[in-house]
Amino acid sequence: MAKMTPRTLSGFMELLPAPQQQMERMMSILRSTYARYGFTPLDTPVIESSDVLLAKGGGETEKQIYRFTKGDADLSLRFDLTVPLAKYVALHYNDLAFPFRRYQIGKVYRGERAQRGRFREFYQADIDIIGDGKLDIVNEAEIPSIIYQTFTALGLRRFQIRVNNRKILNGFYALQGLSAQSGDIMRTVDKLDKIGAEKVGALLTEELQLTQAQAHEILRFIAIRGTNQEVLTALEAYRGRNEIFDAGLSELETVVKYLAAFGVPEDHFAVDLTIARGLDYYTGTVYETTLLDHPEIGSVCSGGRYDNLAEYYTDRQLPGVGISIGLTRLFYVLGEQGMLNPQLPTAPADVLVLPMTEDLSGAIAVATFLRSEGMRTQLYTEQKKFKAKMSYADKLSIPYVIFLGEDELAAGTVTCKDMATGEQTTLSREDTVARIAQGLHARSAGTVIVEG
Amino acid sequence: MAKMTPRTLSGFMELLPAPQQQMERMMSILRSTYARYGFTPLDTPVIESSDVLLAKGGGETEKQIYRFTKGDADLSLRFDLTVPLAKYVALHYNDLAFPFRRYQIGKVYRGERAQRGRFREFYQADIDIIGDGKLDIVNEAEIPSIIYQTFTALGLRRFQIRVNNRKILNGFYALQGLSAQSGDIMRTVDKLDKIGAEKVGALLTEELQLTQAQAHEILRFIAIRGTNQEVLTALEAYRGRNEIFDAGLSELETVVKYLAAFGVPEDHFAVDLTIARGLDYYTGTVYETTLLDHPEIGSVCSGGRYDNLAEYYTDRQLPGVGISIGLTRLFYVLGEQGMLNPQLPTAPADVLVLPMTEDLSGAIAVATFLRSEGMRTQLYTEQKKFKAKMSYADKLSIPYVIFLGEDELAAGTVTCKDMATGEQTTLSREDTVARIAQGLHARSAGTVIVEG
Repeated sequence: MAKMTPRTLSGFMELLPAPQQQMERMMSILRSTYARYGFTPLDTPVIESSDVLLAKGGGETEKQIYRFTKGDADLSLRFDLTVPLAKYVALHYNDLAFPFRRYQIGKVYRGERAQRGRFREFYQADIDIIGDGKLDIVNEAEIPSIIYQTFTALGLRRFQIRVNNRKILNGFYALQGLSAQSGDIMRTVDKLDKIGAEKVGALLTEELQLTQAQAHEILRFIAIRGTNQEVLTALEAYRGRNEIFDAGLSELETVVKYLAAFGVPEDHFAVDLTIARGLDYYTGTVYETTLLDHPEIGSVCSGGRYDNLAEYYTDRQLPGVGISIGLTRLFYVLGEQGMLNPQLPTAPADVLVLPMTEDLSGAIAVATFLRSEGMRTQLYTEQKKFKAKMSYADKLSIPYVIFLGEDELAAGTVTCKDMATGEQTTLSREDTVARIAQGLHARSAGTVIVEG
Repeated sequence: MAKMTPRTLSGFMELLPAPQQQMERMMSILRSTYARYGFTPLDTPVIESSDVLLAKGGGETEKQIYRFTKGDADLSLRFDLTVPLAKYVALHYNDLAFPFRRYQIGKVYRGERAQRGRFREFYQADIDIIGDGKLDIVNEAEIPSIIYQTFTALGLRRFQIRVNNRKILNGFYALQGLSAQSGDIMRTVDKLDKIGAEKVGALLTEELQLTQAQAHEILRFIAIRGTNQEVLTALEAYRGRNEIFDAGLSELETVVKYLAAFGVPEDHFAVDLTIARGLDYYTGTVYETTLLDHPEIGSVCSGGRYDNLAEYYTDRQLPGVGISIGLTRLFYVLGEQGMLNPQLPTAPADVLVLPMTEDLSGAIAVATFLRSEGMRTQLYTEQKKFKAKMSYADKLSIPYVIFLGEDELAAGTVTCKDMATGEQTTLSREDTVARIAQGLHARSAGTVIVEG
């Protein structure tokens, strides 16, 4: 028969079993951390009707969307988890209680040009808090504190959550008489890290036709640096000249104050006036998160406050705040940087049971016992040489192998080899379980991510 | 602004938060049970190249596939998890150790005619064991024992795993000189439950042109009933006349013997000669699982042994055995039948913290403490009347509410109300955590599924 060469599409992550175990571990930590903050898990369809998904229309994203027809239905694959959330909240409004706090870890699709580290199918891990009409400012401090807890639980230490407030920027640009251009200006200022202040200044005067004085004011403003308190103090000098600016500054001060109360150490967050976030719908606090040793990666977790989540679906005002981790990309980058802890177990099983007798009933009983004690157990029954069986355990990094011969079965004991140390014990089933459990506990002590 | 009416596509399950929590609980039990049997989690793309996914070609499935182009790529959404597994194993053969045991819980897509309880996007939960060249018969007993453990862990009691062996059927039909028609005959016999023996007999003679004697022999054969031992004994009467039959009978006897060793009670599995499974690629043991009180649902978990998983991709012989739960459909049916335990917590949080002071730092500290103790905690900071806050907790079924006024913060205590009993305590943070933990433990004692 003619064979089709098997392949996986470019831009689609398909992991081998060991890295998949690491990915699962990361997802499990995300789920449990999000749940601990009172977020409920959500799952929405990957496919939506195109008119619903693209109600907002336009934008760079639309070109990338996987859109197709099936019968007479015009369908699209979701390209983020925010639009499906907006639809969900508008559709199920009467069945939800607000503030509605949900997390969702799911695949999204963007037909981007394929390149290394860019994915067309990737997981996003989102949390959002949606209010009905209003949403208290404290939520804007809680969201980054969750990110702090999440990243810390994953094992990251050297990261920083950068915080800004769009009202401060909007107010400042209004002060300069530049409200109409503020969007363009923010997009230009966003390039500061990449091209430097001088070139940003040149773009502002040449492309955007700002005066030298206006460009100077903007560069001076975004150059405000220092500790969070120093930045806030410098901003206080602008207070009293624009209501929106003042409101934004008060919000930012509240967020900084409560971030500390939520236990986020001062060195893990920074007020940064250069953060604007490209998306137009952020209206207040905005976040980015950078790995201090890998600034070239850009933000690994971004989000902010928006005033109107579902305006394309409902007249209700549904303000919210949320943040998203690009999980597939983060996982890829961590792998590339050698930051995935190789010490953590990636084996499919904790114990491999090797029967040495023809009748397998005794070995099956031992495997069943181990499983009832919570041990991930594989029974190996293939007809292979002893050496091949051991190399199977080795190849999969299964940490313990149990041999069951006539002697052991008669005596009610098991012989168990620790594959790392080579140490071999013949003990009762119960004592063997205790020994293995202890070993597994020690092996699982580390975090998923390790730094430098 | 003109609004787009939000809607979710027909045939796509989108759950409200409370049932979603139940679904998550089911998935979590599946994951941990599968892992305990040494299966490694796998995740493959939802989109594959059409030529790869449809290498086998033809069949009823192809019409239902979501297939489309993006740029010049001809793409399809996976319609099961078996074809992607075949691709994966063929593609990554050199990086895998065999037997390769994987589980996958993922969404698949079939554009079926929409009808109640039929889904176009649905979760399958699959386990498979793939051998390299050979695969021992014990695996064919282990697979249904895992299903027994899984369903038992979910809380199902009244179910039965029905087991047969295709070699017995093929051998039997060869004995009747009907090998060429065995596929058609099995499809006809498969209707036995629905239309009865008489009509099956009529179809066999009229449509398939069998003689009365042949039809009689077939009906006599599939009428073999009784305890597993009785059925096996009746089958022994046919032994010695056809090699394939004999091999199948020996396999079935081994499976039955080891199923008992794996701890599956006799009344939870049954040798049933009417089980054939429609799919052509099963070659040995086949399984179906039925809910005894809901036979009308059909099989909720099916699978079997196949001799050549990846024949469209590789010359290597990769035999396997696997089983699949149609999770979305099962969840839907359980909901319809009122079998999802309403006693289990579905709230997004275990505790709602209500600050009664203007400064929230104290309340934030208490929430942070509760979270560090593993309590799923929501801090409620919206400016609402007390009654509205309590009704929020009520609506979400959050079991405990903590009030934090000046007095409590000064004294380092918390006042905590059990929303079910109304009982209110003012205790230290630690004692409150202990009380809540005890209550949560009691509330989580039940299983996801409850029967009649």
